[in-house]
Amino acid sequence: MKIGLIGGGVIGGGWAARFLLNGHDVVMYDPDPQAPRKIDEMLENARHAYSRLTYAPLPAEGTLTYAATPEEAADGVGFVQESAPERIELKRELLGAASRVAPADVVIASSTSGLLPSMLREGMTHPERLTVGHPFNPVYLLPLVELCSPSPETVERAAALYRSIGMHPLVVRQEIDGFISDRLLEALWREALWLVNDGVATVEEVDDAIRYGPGLRWSSMGTFLLYRIAGGEAGMRHFMAQFGPALQWPWTKLTDVPELTEELLAKLAHQSDAQAGGRSVRELERERDDALVAVLQALRGARVGAGGTLADYERTLLEQATVQSDALRWETSVLPEWVDYNGHATESSYLLMTSHAADELLGAIGIDAEYLRSGGSYYTVETHICHLDEAKAGDRLVVTTQVLGADEKRIHIFVRIARDGTLLATTEQMLLHVDTNAGRATAAPPHVLERVQALVEVHSSLPWPERAGRRIGLPSGAPS
Amino acid sequence: MKIGLIGGGVIGGGWAARFLLNGHDVVMYDPDPQAPRKIDEMLENARHAYSRLTYAPLPAEGTLTYAATPEEAADGVGFVQESAPERIELKRELLGAASRVAPADVVIASSTSGLLPSMLREGMTHPERLTVGHPFNPVYLLPLVELCSPSPETVERAAALYRSIGMHPLVVRQEIDGFISDRLLEALWREALWLVNDGVATVEEVDDAIRYGPGLRWSSMGTFLLYRIAGGEAGMRHFMAQFGPALQWPWTKLTDVPELTEELLAKLAHQSDAQAGGRSVRELERERDDALVAVLQALRGARVGAGGTLADYERTLLEQATVQSDALRWETSVLPEWVDYNGHATESSYLLMTSHAADELLGAIGIDAEYLRSGGSYYTVETHICHLDEAKAGDRLVVTTQVLGADEKRIHIFVRIARDGTLLATTEQMLLHVDTNAGRATAAPPHVLERVQALVEVHSSLPWPERAGRRIGLPSGAPS
Repeated sequence: MKIGLIGGGVIGGGWAARFLLNGHDVVMYDPDPQAPRKIDEMLENARHAYSRLTYAPLPAEGTLTYAATPEEAADGVGFVQESAPERIELKRELLGAASRVAPADVVIASSTSGLLPSMLREGMTHPERLTVGHPFNPVYLLPLVELCSPSPETVERAAALYRSIGMHPLVVRQEIDGFISDRLLEALWREALWLVNDGVATVEEVDDAIRYGPGLRWSSMGTFLLYRIAGGEAGMRHFMAQFGPALQWPWTKLTDVPELTEELLAKLAHQSDAQAGGRSVRELERERDDALVAVLQALRGARVGAGGTLADYERTLLEQATVQSDALRWETSVLPEWVDYNGHATESSYLLMTSHAADELLGAIGIDAEYLRSGGSYYTVETHICHLDEAKAGDRLVVTTQVLGADEKRIHIFVRIARDGTLLATTEQMLLHVDTNAGRATAAPPHVLERVQALVEVHSSLPWPERAGRRIGLPSGAPS
Repeated sequence: MKIGLIGGGVIGGGWAARFLLNGHDVVMYDPDPQAPRKIDEMLENARHAYSRLTYAPLPAEGTLTYAATPEEAADGVGFVQESAPERIELKRELLGAASRVAPADVVIASSTSGLLPSMLREGMTHPERLTVGHPFNPVYLLPLVELCSPSPETVERAAALYRSIGMHPLVVRQEIDGFISDRLLEALWREALWLVNDGVATVEEVDDAIRYGPGLRWSSMGTFLLYRIAGGEAGMRHFMAQFGPALQWPWTKLTDVPELTEELLAKLAHQSDAQAGGRSVRELERERDDALVAVLQALRGARVGAGGTLADYERTLLEQATVQSDALRWETSVLPEWVDYNGHATESSYLLMTSHAADELLGAIGIDAEYLRSGGSYYTVETHICHLDEAKAGDRLVVTTQVLGADEKRIHIFVRIARDGTLLATTEQMLLHVDTNAGRATAAPPHVLERVQALVEVHSSLPWPERAGRRIGLPSGAPS
């Protein structure tokens, strides 16, 4: 479908990127002569983001062309999205122009952050096909889009298109300035401005007060569900009884609060029960915690905010850890992020477990943080994995490492991954000692070799593993 | 260090879990006879979370004992944390009792969400060692803790302890009701209550208006930095000029707003520049996007909120994708989450790329979503990886798959991963056709075998890979 876009700023450009990357052709009207350059840059960012976001094959990118007038942008397209500045007269003019060109069955959406659809539609031809379609920056990544229109058919048609490009439509059932999300954002924003205005905090401190704490929760759950959980076993009514009085305390400059009537309390409790959908507080806690753990790990990977805190913490833990006597036996659970859509642990997760087992082994022979900083390390040069059975999320696994042999540069190990005595996978690896500064293999120093040889000695009494030294091949297929 | 905890509700129990899992012994005072049961359950949740949070070795868990009085909980400990209900008289009584037992050099912290330290310290012995230490639920996972005390030494000593258990201390420099974070939360919460009270939205809709949109951003960046980015190239002053007028619009019920004086605008612009620290808007956009992509992927793994939206979107993309003629050649960038602390792609990431290449191959031979639903699939039974060189984040890699052979149940493949023609790794795999319902190997159906044989035919003209059929072993070490 060809999409007409009116307005190519941060929001309109974001729409262009989302539609184009989802294979739609786009016709853009924006009077700013800089618009093409800015949109190109935004599109470049979006391509970069999508190349990481998913392995799923995206359709071939659509084509972007520019229109000289809003009418031209609405001509012959299947959907119009307006993202002009928040000035009602300007928006009315543009929406009116588009509506006089686009046939009656073309939905016209406005990206307005908070202007009412009943005001926007004034002067439009076929005004019933107008809906608010309010996205969030960056439009090409955030799923939320708020829809608001008196016509259910218009809402449903817009929602279907938005869903097809990876978005989550939220229908705002009642016309209200700022809709739902911006009312919440605006309340927080106004309070944030007061804090800076009054010299209580800097903009950075205000931001940190969110991203190291409540912001982490908000990526997976909203305030109502979080407070229900915080209320503990007694539920939402208990939470309100406990924290309701704080509503009267001067905890914000914005002091107007609804009265906690029995009617409001009953409504909150009832809607909160519906939202929990029968999940107990313990179950909700687990869901909250699993999401938080996943988000913290994601941010650790990106080295951002709370992810940086976690990385620092882990570095400390690793530096404090003494060599464990049971370094060659390690237990773990199958993490939810290790399983595929069939619920089985992925191939990569077995290799992750092996890497961890190898790290434990290296710890046991003296390869610690200090050693790594000095420029010595063991790298894996070869790995052979055999899969024998499957593991599911939550399965408790035991990972054991056998040292098969070593010389001054190499260590040959064999790792078994088992559940309740059943072998699920084996991994054989060759590790090579390297000088990481010079980037080449070198002999390990005597104090390391000593410990390696001690392990080889101890393990020499163990039986040679059946699957060590295997090669892959079909009985017939491979040339010898 | 032994820690004295006073109050074992949701917050105190969370502190108990964080301290215990970090190896500290804990003495807990809570008059609720249900406290031990509730704390045990919370500790179980926390153990579960920590077992997934990090591979780093945690110290041996501390010991939890119960005290009959607040004095007993403060006796002989190195740090006291009070987490009683938000009633000033009760908190004063408990803090006073603890202060009469704990030596003057023991820091006493209060978890209060917003009561002023100057009020809390009344009646304490050595009141200068009191600090607010306000955590966020779940205390064992969220890093943020707000500190507020007139004594810099007290603040620094508390901050050091909190940092050592993985937290991010934020010093609130000015005594203010609600400190920083709760003022922001409270403003949003009050507006949320209005929305439900007025029937505009249900609690679930309010929550969705956060977690599918702005909440995803807040996990890595706060509002000020996000708005700076949204302002585009022109910076914070431009953003305020553009959106400042909206402060006068009725976008919240909480309408008291600071006047946008030149002084406030200059302060915002100056502090925002400091926060950006010289990063351009394009750089900040990339940082924001990288964090968002990582968070969305994390939530997809946990199948929560926006992660569910992404999973649905990917399913649609996969189902729409037609078999690509270039299925056996695939390009990718090294994602930031694939690299280790040395900046190199991890072993697992090579296997991930291989899995993806194998998935593309399976797509090309007709193993699509429909086929998988019908209960047929190919599983990897054996993998052999050779590492030849390293890849860094952002490197553009080409992954090619060669089919070495096949029979009615098996496909033998060889995958090469290269950068600019330099081979970084090779992966050899044996794939086995299975009936996933019966859980056993079966012959693939004729329409699949036909395509497999066509590929074997095409690839039979390629040279046999040098590293195919390798076994791992030391020249001397392995028995034959």
